[in-house]
Amino acid sequence: MKGITKRSEDYSKWYTDIIAQADLAEHSAVKGCMVIKPYGYAIWENIRNVLDKMFKETGHENLYFPLFIPESFLKKEADHVEGFAPQLAVVTHAGGKKLEENLIVRPTSETVICSTYAKWVKSYRDLPLLYNQWANVVRWEMRTRLFLRTTEFLWQEGHTVHATHEEAEEETLRMLEVYRACVEDYMAMSVIKGLKSESEKFAGALRTYSIEAMMQDKKALQAGTSHNLGQNFAKVFNIQYQNKQGQLEYAWQTSWGVSTRLIGALIMSHSDDNGLVLPPKIAPVHVVIVPIYKTIEEMSQVMEVCKKIKDDLCNKYTVKIDDRDTEKPGAKFFEWEKKGVPVRIELGPKDLAKGQVVLARRDMGTKSTVSINNVPSSIDELLTDIQKTLLEKHRKFREENTINIDNYTDFKNLYEKDEAFVRAGWCKGSECEEKIKEDTKATIRSLPMDGREDSGTCICCGKPSTVKAIFSKAY
Amino acid sequence: MKGITKRSEDYSKWYTDIIAQADLAEHSAVKGCMVIKPYGYAIWENIRNVLDKMFKETGHENLYFPLFIPESFLKKEADHVEGFAPQLAVVTHAGGKKLEENLIVRPTSETVICSTYAKWVKSYRDLPLLYNQWANVVRWEMRTRLFLRTTEFLWQEGHTVHATHEEAEEETLRMLEVYRACVEDYMAMSVIKGLKSESEKFAGALRTYSIEAMMQDKKALQAGTSHNLGQNFAKVFNIQYQNKQGQLEYAWQTSWGVSTRLIGALIMSHSDDNGLVLPPKIAPVHVVIVPIYKTIEEMSQVMEVCKKIKDDLCNKYTVKIDDRDTEKPGAKFFEWEKKGVPVRIELGPKDLAKGQVVLARRDMGTKSTVSINNVPSSIDELLTDIQKTLLEKHRKFREENTINIDNYTDFKNLYEKDEAFVRAGWCKGSECEEKIKEDTKATIRSLPMDGREDSGTCICCGKPSTVKAIFSKAY
Repeated sequence: MKGITKRSEDYSKWYTDIIAQADLAEHSAVKGCMVIKPYGYAIWENIRNVLDKMFKETGHENLYFPLFIPESFLKKEADHVEGFAPQLAVVTHAGGKKLEENLIVRPTSETVICSTYAKWVKSYRDLPLLYNQWANVVRWEMRTRLFLRTTEFLWQEGHTVHATHEEAEEETLRMLEVYRACVEDYMAMSVIKGLKSESEKFAGALRTYSIEAMMQDKKALQAGTSHNLGQNFAKVFNIQYQNKQGQLEYAWQTSWGVSTRLIGALIMSHSDDNGLVLPPKIAPVHVVIVPIYKTIEEMSQVMEVCKKIKDDLCNKYTVKIDDRDTEKPGAKFFEWEKKGVPVRIELGPKDLAKGQVVLARRDMGTKSTVSINNVPSSIDELLTDIQKTLLEKHRKFREENTINIDNYTDFKNLYEKDEAFVRAGWCKGSECEEKIKEDTKATIRSLPMDGREDSGTCICCGKPSTVKAIFSKAY
Repeated sequence: MKGITKRSEDYSKWYTDIIAQADLAEHSAVKGCMVIKPYGYAIWENIRNVLDKMFKETGHENLYFPLFIPESFLKKEADHVEGFAPQLAVVTHAGGKKLEENLIVRPTSETVICSTYAKWVKSYRDLPLLYNQWANVVRWEMRTRLFLRTTEFLWQEGHTVHATHEEAEEETLRMLEVYRACVEDYMAMSVIKGLKSESEKFAGALRTYSIEAMMQDKKALQAGTSHNLGQNFAKVFNIQYQNKQGQLEYAWQTSWGVSTRLIGALIMSHSDDNGLVLPPKIAPVHVVIVPIYKTIEEMSQVMEVCKKIKDDLCNKYTVKIDDRDTEKPGAKFFEWEKKGVPVRIELGPKDLAKGQVVLARRDMGTKSTVSINNVPSSIDELLTDIQKTLLEKHRKFREENTINIDNYTDFKNLYEKDEAFVRAGWCKGSECEEKIKEDTKATIRSLPMDGREDSGTCICCGKPSTVKAIFSKAY
């Protein structure tokens, strides 16, 4: 069994080691596509269930649109096709024949959905349309990394239609907040909510908002995006509705998505040199019980109590007893540690004699003993504390590595030897944005909506600025 | 608003009318692909949730394999490629370039999964592998019908690996039984469990089992299949394991699937000339409450009680109050009838004065009045009875239209003027099977596992036979 490369030695290798050792996913024989293994898929199912519930609570319904998009549809919105053209997979033949029109495997579904919405929307009474789909999408990538960047990935894409710009903007921000709530409250990842710059926005959108998280190498990862599409797609696909006054108006739209990329973010947010670390609210297994024994008699006594403990916990938590007789306890500890199970219960004959168990906490690596009767309440407390501690640690790490800089030399020096989120003034000019990228490889990740003072001078040109931007290198 | 064509007038038109009027799905701009609309997708979610729970209870885990299959993989198993070749969609270009090897959009995933399983399986200790995936698949179709036959459809495909033929056979039959339980106990469709003939089995399988349901036009619809793949794929993809004695053996495999086709079966099983009829256990909405009022004062009194009734029911059921002021009660009744909601509650000022509500039962079209206090218990009873009645009706319809015939002239005469399931002897010869198909268009749907007497004479050649087959025309 191979170990896990230390973060300090090779961060990138550490990331792939975590995935392999926790058995989350692997590369497939198909270039750029991954196989999501059962343990990795169980994490995705948990994220999906949290989001799906939130979508439904905010009035959205699920539906399903085709995988294929006629090439002509994709070409209708100029910015959109320009943004996605280099990444498309094209079906040219089907049913043994060359197709009359090529079909694109969806990289995102705005175009195929808008062509249908144009039929569904007639009157203001039909609005809003609040729909979402869970689907696979394909974007051809040259360099792929498991979860972070794969040719095919799983995601959800919400597509809504509204009567006014205000309603569309409200929806865009509502879904951004849903993403923040899922990512912070369940995945224990602290994020920055903010607007994207023009150069970083979605191809075809009016405005893109995102949540940005800091990874342990102090680079940014975009964890979710919510787009106000304005009337751009409505105009090219002719989505018009009759308003109360009987006049035809173009509708306003939004789209928003998160993907299996979130699992990559989760891994790089909490894991350590011993393997994956999972927040309890998203972990497929909350508690693993490892029985320790030498004799058959010890085994039967220990196993009886292990089963009782599991019975006491399993209404609230997913609990596994690792009763394999092919592995020793130490190897089992090691294995579940690598899989990031939040709490391990160890129980041997000595513990049994004292009426206690050992609780090992994955995030801090600490152990404590509690009386067998108190296991359920101790587990409640421990899991609550782990969830909270992970989020706080993640928030603190980002705050400690977010720097205010107002001098371009300092800015460039920083990125020559280190990584960080830099908060600095920006004149909103694309030339400055481009020059900063060329000089440092750092880009504008977010124009944060943190309500803080925004006036100052542009970090690059020195002219007065009205916004502060978060700069960083990014995944 | 258009009505629904009567079954007796045009059965095929009736089917499409039901789908359109219940707002389940529609054709998309992409040839052969459908848009599954929110109400149709909610039915699919319910079916999926039932099955997913059953899969997990029988020890299976979900995972995810790539959408694309390298062309060379698909060609490895001779029967398999022959079976699927005419239906393939082919990606020839991606990322702006011609691909070195074409990629097939999966029509089913045996080949891409087996190529990975070959790496996962080393020892008998690794077995069994019990995995499932929920996915979209593409099979190019010339003539498509919503839900029943579409170019892209949603499904689940289970793929398991075992040490012995016995274990694989056991798994194949276990999953067939899971399908029967889902379809009968939740979808209220009575089915025949049985074996497929050689000519009807899955391309690449050793044996295919299916559940077959009778539609209202007395034709058969294959509602789910479970395949014992034998060692066919293991041999071409080299899935070998070391047994306890240290020798290498080829593994045994199964695969099994159901798809969105089930929704087509559901529609044709229970619906009537007034629209969709849904069994309560799979209905997205169980109860719709329609308030009836003329004055504002009446409205506020009626609505208060409607809300109370909803509150009393909504822990157990999905309940909707149709409080739209744009439609009259009669139009609302009509609309929810077409959507197949099992029970409608009507409540107006006269009912309120008597302390009662009207309960309208969708399946039988009957109405009853119950006291407001008794609504929860009445709804419990009514939904239970509807579920049971639908299944019994469906079972009875099939039984009444299943005929024993032992004379080929009678057999041919029957299919000249009518449809039915015919139970008849078969010599197991493919010539007889082929001749029957040519003469009557009826095919062998199932060699039923009903434990009944099987010996007799072949309906076609008259030679002694050891099996009875169910013949029928099929979807």
